[in-house]
This record gives sequence, structure tokens and C-alpha cells, in this order.
Amino acid sequence: MNKRIYLNAFDMNTVGHQSPGLWSHPEDQSDRYKELNYWVELAKLLEKGKFDGLFLADVLGVYDIHRGNSDAALEQAVQVPANDPLLLISAMSQATKHLCFGVTYSLTYEHPYMLARRFSTLDHLTNGRVAWNIVSSYLDSAAKNFGLSEQLKHDDRYEVADEFLEVCYKLWEGSWEEDAVLRDKNNRIFTDPRKVHDINHDGKFFKVPGAHLCEPSPQRTPVLYQAGASSRGRAFAAKHAECVFTAGPSPTLVKKGVDDLRKKAKEQGREPEDLKIFTVFTPIVGETAEEAEQKYEELKSYISYEGALALLGGWTGVDFSKYNPDDTVEYIESNSIQSALELFTKADPNRKWTIRELAAFAGIGGRGPVVVGTPEKIADEMEKWVKEADVDGFNIAYTLAPGSFKDFVELVVPILQARGLIQNDYQAGTYREKIYGHGQKYLKESHHGHIYKNLFSVK
Amino acid sequence: MNKRIYLNAFDMNTVGHQSPGLWSHPEDQSDRYKELNYWVELAKLLEKGKFDGLFLADVLGVYDIHRGNSDAALEQAVQVPANDPLLLISAMSQATKHLCFGVTYSLTYEHPYMLARRFSTLDHLTNGRVAWNIVSSYLDSAAKNFGLSEQLKHDDRYEVADEFLEVCYKLWEGSWEEDAVLRDKNNRIFTDPRKVHDINHDGKFFKVPGAHLCEPSPQRTPVLYQAGASSRGRAFAAKHAECVFTAGPSPTLVKKGVDDLRKKAKEQGREPEDLKIFTVFTPIVGETAEEAEQKYEELKSYISYEGALALLGGWTGVDFSKYNPDDTVEYIESNSIQSALELFTKADPNRKWTIRELAAFAGIGGRGPVVVGTPEKIADEMEKWVKEADVDGFNIAYTLAPGSFKDFVELVVPILQARGLIQNDYQAGTYREKIYGHGQKYLKESHHGHIYKNLFSVK
Repeated sequence: MNKRIYLNAFDMNTVGHQSPGLWSHPEDQSDRYKELNYWVELAKLLEKGKFDGLFLADVLGVYDIHRGNSDAALEQAVQVPANDPLLLISAMSQATKHLCFGVTYSLTYEHPYMLARRFSTLDHLTNGRVAWNIVSSYLDSAAKNFGLSEQLKHDDRYEVADEFLEVCYKLWEGSWEEDAVLRDKNNRIFTDPRKVHDINHDGKFFKVPGAHLCEPSPQRTPVLYQAGASSRGRAFAAKHAECVFTAGPSPTLVKKGVDDLRKKAKEQGREPEDLKIFTVFTPIVGETAEEAEQKYEELKSYISYEGALALLGGWTGVDFSKYNPDDTVEYIESNSIQSALELFTKADPNRKWTIRELAAFAGIGGRGPVVVGTPEKIADEMEKWVKEADVDGFNIAYTLAPGSFKDFVELVVPILQARGLIQNDYQAGTYREKIYGHGQKYLKESHHGHIYKNLFSVK
Repeated sequence: MNKRIYLNAFDMNTVGHQSPGLWSHPEDQSDRYKELNYWVELAKLLEKGKFDGLFLADVLGVYDIHRGNSDAALEQAVQVPANDPLLLISAMSQATKHLCFGVTYSLTYEHPYMLARRFSTLDHLTNGRVAWNIVSSYLDSAAKNFGLSEQLKHDDRYEVADEFLEVCYKLWEGSWEEDAVLRDKNNRIFTDPRKVHDINHDGKFFKVPGAHLCEPSPQRTPVLYQAGASSRGRAFAAKHAECVFTAGPSPTLVKKGVDDLRKKAKEQGREPEDLKIFTVFTPIVGETAEEAEQKYEELKSYISYEGALALLGGWTGVDFSKYNPDDTVEYIESNSIQSALELFTKADPNRKWTIRELAAFAGIGGRGPVVVGTPEKIADEMEKWVKEADVDGFNIAYTLAPGSFKDFVELVVPILQARGLIQNDYQAGTYREKIYGHGQKYLKESHHGHIYKNLFSVK
């Protein structure tokens, strides 16, 4: 039997998410991101295609490294304007029954007491169909607007994040016992106060003495995603994440990270396969190979060079405007680019990448593969990735929204279903049950967060 | 012509909002607050009844003064559990066309850069049907869970709030010019960067150098509500609020606050009637007077004495458990109760209120009037309040949810419409246009926030 592939649509509450310039294509509708109908239609489309989830990215700053300002980002709508992703969920949830929602939400500028309430609320409202993609923000431009002179150092961010999660687990798992809420109209007792516990958290970064404001939600802790690609980030993921979002241009390269993640998960006492790993994947699909190639050529003509460099500048910290488009990246003396661009260059180690080529590469598909071809070829490649990179699923990125998703649902999904690679219909239950099977509403016993369950209960 | 009365439904993302104990009534469904369907049905009901808005209260702490713990609040579900109100809006907005949403959101534990994005997002998604009820939290139990030893002092809170609003106005009104976003696919320019401005805010409490993350929303600044009843609170309302939520047991008493508010608004250079003032009002309606009285008696039998004291304890800071239920409140030596309870006692200055009576009074209707009778009597009283208290509208509180709203829509609304007191149909446009008339999408020129419009534009 084939390993089941999990499918997320990869999007963001913004214009032209990962394809700088393609918003200007006549068929792109991503600038309708402000309309609820746009999102509700997308959610219905994805549910029709039996997608497991919609994964929403987010950033809280602008890409202002390129040329030292945000002009290119603004002009090409490179993830700006960007609206809040959480506020989309209830409308999409109401319009669907099974589609799950993974929402990126930074813990850097939010208090855990508040964040815990937000996700408990969404977990209630969606009937347990929500996941939190845990990020600590990476843009200085965001930090500055929260009154900080710069962001926290990378490893400090993870120390804060660890304690942040500890507070959340205490609130979600420990504060309200399973049978605390009685809803007993006859005896006029709504909640048994003896079964609601103050968490008395007194840590290095946070002090939270009280109880959670929310009664236990269907999953208590939402499904946890994480996307850190550094060694520290992977250690964090191995401890906290149930799903991991990764990216890379070749299966070989992605597999290295996957192996490390599964190894680290095992060291944490977890089953390596309990980590569901998603990698970004951009399909350009046509009924024939020629049609797909034609489409790809046409799409490429809409890439904005300046927009792509704005995005790359944000990712690498390098202002590429200082160099000639035909300079190869080796000329750029910068540690951050050497490490950040490793991903690109390692994919094809013998190639001398020019900045122009890099922009074209990043202009469609971000750091992941772009696969151009017939539905069968797309399906072949996905199968190959799952085997070679040992991933569990994909975050399918769009070039044109919602057209790319429509193509995928209509053309690729039936092939994947016929091959038994994706679900023909949804499993009942919460997001976690859809991933781990019926009955697994809550964190697995081997998950770190499980130790907080009933932590405060009188034994 | 009669003065048009504005109608809000008064609710909260919790069980049994203002009527401690009544959640246990067989007909009450407020414990369905966790279900989206519950809210979507309510929104549709209110729109059918041509309500102007749904006003959602919120608290971020628990009522733990009574007996020095939160047992009574938990047992009687006195505003706990309490979920996040913002996350309900998009689903309700999607199910309606005109109903507006006023959401209480504390500025004490949130950064203005983030809050501004949340409300811009909601303003986009609702097509300009959102209002922010500005509060600074009043519960120590909340402050403690955000790591503070206690809340800020009352007047300091307003100083922070003033600067908080300044940052928001700069982001909402000043940062993006009206024609900054071109969406020009032919020339491949989404936003003209010259028309997006960093706000360079460098204040006492906040530093926000950058531009707003969101493009201008239908109203830019959401409609602003405020509910402070102190002198400092009213000064804040006169400067910032477009709608004010007030409460009091008699028209005479409410009028004093209203007069002061309108006077203060005038001192700010605004038209006194530009402040739309809502007062809380709890109708118990029956087809006949007897039926209504019977209903009231039955409802009262569900009031929880302990729950009411938990609520009163939170409002006044007094632990009433130290006293005998038959003690009169005069016996309680406390400045806070003397000022907080003025509202009650002044309503009937010759009456010696016992704690038991106070609890019964607060148990239905909070600090506002409870009017029991036929639809005609309810309408008469509303008319009287508008005339005598000079208010513009009501926050209609429920005793049983959604039954109280259903009764009101079916029985009272037709009478009010027949008398020409409320709208027969909605005005087109945004929330602000529905209040101030067609074309008034943005803050009025006389509103303090207007000075931030185009503040940073190159002239």
C-alpha cells in the first residue's frame, strides 16, 4: 500500500504570495484577498479537492533590505499589503466541514495568555480543525514597529519560544480538567471550580498565575506546525511540532533535513513518523506537456526582477542592488548569503548562479521545486519526492490564485486518487484525528506537551 | 419627525452574559457560544429585525473578588469561560449584508501596530461594518496573567490609551494615501511607494517607525466606541468616540452623563449630537402584561445570588461575602463601593439597599433598567428614555439567549417601526455611513482623528 500523501494549499492573506510580479497576470485574483467571498470560495474548492488543509503564512514586517527601502516590495506587492490571517478562519470554517486550517502566528509580539485564548477559540469554532504554525518573527522591520531596536538573537528566540509553549501547554492541557465543565442545568452548576486550576507559571520570560479563560476545546492544544530549518529550529520542531513545513529544491537536499528531524524526534522519545513533514511544491500543470511548458513560459514573463530581489533580500539579509545582475553569488561576501543560499546552490552545486538567475528561480516556487507538465508528470514527481525525500505531504504553492489550485483539483487530484496516494474522502474528527487516526483528538502520549495534561489535578 | 433610535444587541462570547444564573433556564442556549452556527443564526435574526449592530463585550480576567476566589464565577459561568470575540466576526459577516459589529478589545495587552492590523483586516472583510469598543482592562486578575503585578492606575491607563489611539490614527489615516494602491496590471504597479508613508512615531509609550501593513480599508478607522463613565473616561470619549456605551437605572441619572459627554464633545469642537450614545436596556416582553410579569418572576427564580455577587465584586472591588445578605450597603465602608454603587442608590435615593436586593437588581439587567410588559409598554419606555435621557439608542441585553432577541425582533420591532422610531430597512454603505449618512465613510472633519489624514503626504 502506498504511503498516504497529505495536501495543504499554501497561501497568505496578501497579494501574490510567493510569486513576485505574477499578481499582474490577467488571470490572477490574489488581490481579492480582502474579500471574504474569495476565501470562502477557495476553502470550498480545496474541500472539493479533498485537500487536508489550507496553510496560511504570515509576516509582520516588510521586505526593506533591497535598495534599503520597501519600494520594490510595495510596488510589486511582495507580501505587502498583508492582513491578519486568524480573522479569516471562522468564515471559511462555516463554509466547509472537513478542511483544516494551519495558521502562522508569531509568538514574538503576543503574550501566551492571549494567544492561548485565540487558538482555543478557533479550535472551538472550527470543531477542532485548527493548527498553529509556531514562528518567531525574522524581520527587523517587524521588531522595530513593536518598539524594539532589533529582533532577539536567533537562539534567544527559541528559548523564549520554549517557555511560551510551556505556558500554552499548561493553559491548554493542564488548567481545566476533562470533566470540569458540567453544564448541569438541574443542579445549576456550570463548571466545577475544583477542577479548574491556576497554572502558577513563574518563569524567566513569563509570569502567568491564573487559569485558562477557555473551557477545553476539541483538541485542547491545536495541531502544532513548525518551520525552522536551523539546527536549533529542528530541535524545537522535534520537541513541539506534529507537522513540519520545510522547503528545498531537490529531494536529496530536503531528505537531509528530514532525516535530522526524524532522528531528533526519536531522541525525544517520539516515533520518527509521528512528525508529518510537508515540503513546498509548485506545480504548473497542462493537459499536455506542451501546454504546461507554454504556460510556464508565459508565467515567467510576469516575474518581477525587483520584486524577487526584495523577497530574496528579506530572506538572506543581502541587498542585491549593490551587485550587477550578472554577478555570480560567489562574489557576494556575506556569511548570511552563503548560508541562506546554500539551499539554492547545493541543488546544483556545479552551477554558477548569477543574481539574475537566482531572482528567476525565486520568482516562481520560492525555495522549492517547480514541476511543469501533465497531471501524470506532476503526480510522478510528487510520488518521487515522497519516496526520495521521505516527506509526508506538500504545501502546494500557487502561481496564479485561485487558478493554480483549480487546475490542481481538477487535473492532478483525480490522478493522485486513482493511484491511491491521497484520500478519496475525509476521515471524521478533528485535525489531529485526520492525521493520526480516529480517537487521537489530543496530543500523543509521546509528545512533550502531554506531560502537562492533568498536571495540576488533585490526584 | 421622531429621532431615530439605534439598536444594538448586547452580547459576549461567553455563557450567560449579564444575568448570572440564567444560563440554567431550560430555554437558554447561551452555552452554545462555542458553535459558529449559534452566532450565525443570531446575526441573521438581528438582521431580520433591522438591528444596527451586534455589540460584543469582553473581559480578559475572571471575577475573583467575591470570597477571594473565582469559585462562584466558575460555578455560575459568570463571564467565564470567555472566548475571543474578534474571531467570530468573519463568519457572521459572511452570513449578513448590513448588520454591523462592535467589538470590545482591550488596548492594555496589545501593541497598536498589531491592533491596527486586526481592525483594518476586519474592516476589509466586513466591507466596513466594524467598530472597535476601546477599553483598557479593569480587572487585576487580567493584569496578573500578563505578568504585571497589578493594572496601571486609572488615569495612567488613559494616558497610554491616548497615545495608543494616536499611533492607530497615524497608521489608519496617515500612512497610506487614498490613491496609493493602483492595482495597475498593465503597468505592473500594485502600490505607488511614494504614497505610502512611514509614521515615525516616537512617543512616551510606543515607538512605531514604519508604515501600516494594510492598504486603506473601507472606513480606514473603524467606528469608535467607548464606555468610560469617569470624568477622565468621558473626556477620552468626547475626543475619540463616535459612539458611547453607557448604563444607568434611570433616565435622569443617565442624562447627567449624557449632558456631560455632549458638553465635552462641544468643547472639542464637535457637534454634540455627533456622539451617538447607547444605554443598556433589558426588556422582558409578553403578549400581555400578565404574561410578561409571569415570565419575569420565573426568570428571577433562576438568578444566582453567588453569581450576582461575583459580578458585583468585580465591578466594585468589594467582597460582599464578608457581610450579611440583609446588611444595607451603607454599612460597607469602602470608597470604591460608595462611588461604584452610587449608580444604584441614586436611582432610588430614599431606599436602603440590602446586599440581597443589590444582587437581585444586578442579577437581571446589570446596571440598566429592566422593563417588563407588552411590546407597547417596552416601546413606550424606550421612547421615554430617548426623550428624557437624550440617548440615541440602546444596547439590548438578553435574559435568555437567543430567546430574548427573538421576542424583541418579533414583538417589539414591528411596534417601533410602526411608530417611525427605528429603521424599516438598512441604509447602504459602511457602519459610519449608516450612522452619519451616505458619503461619511471616514471620520468626520471635526473628529480628532481627522488631523492624521494625509499627515505625512508630500504637499
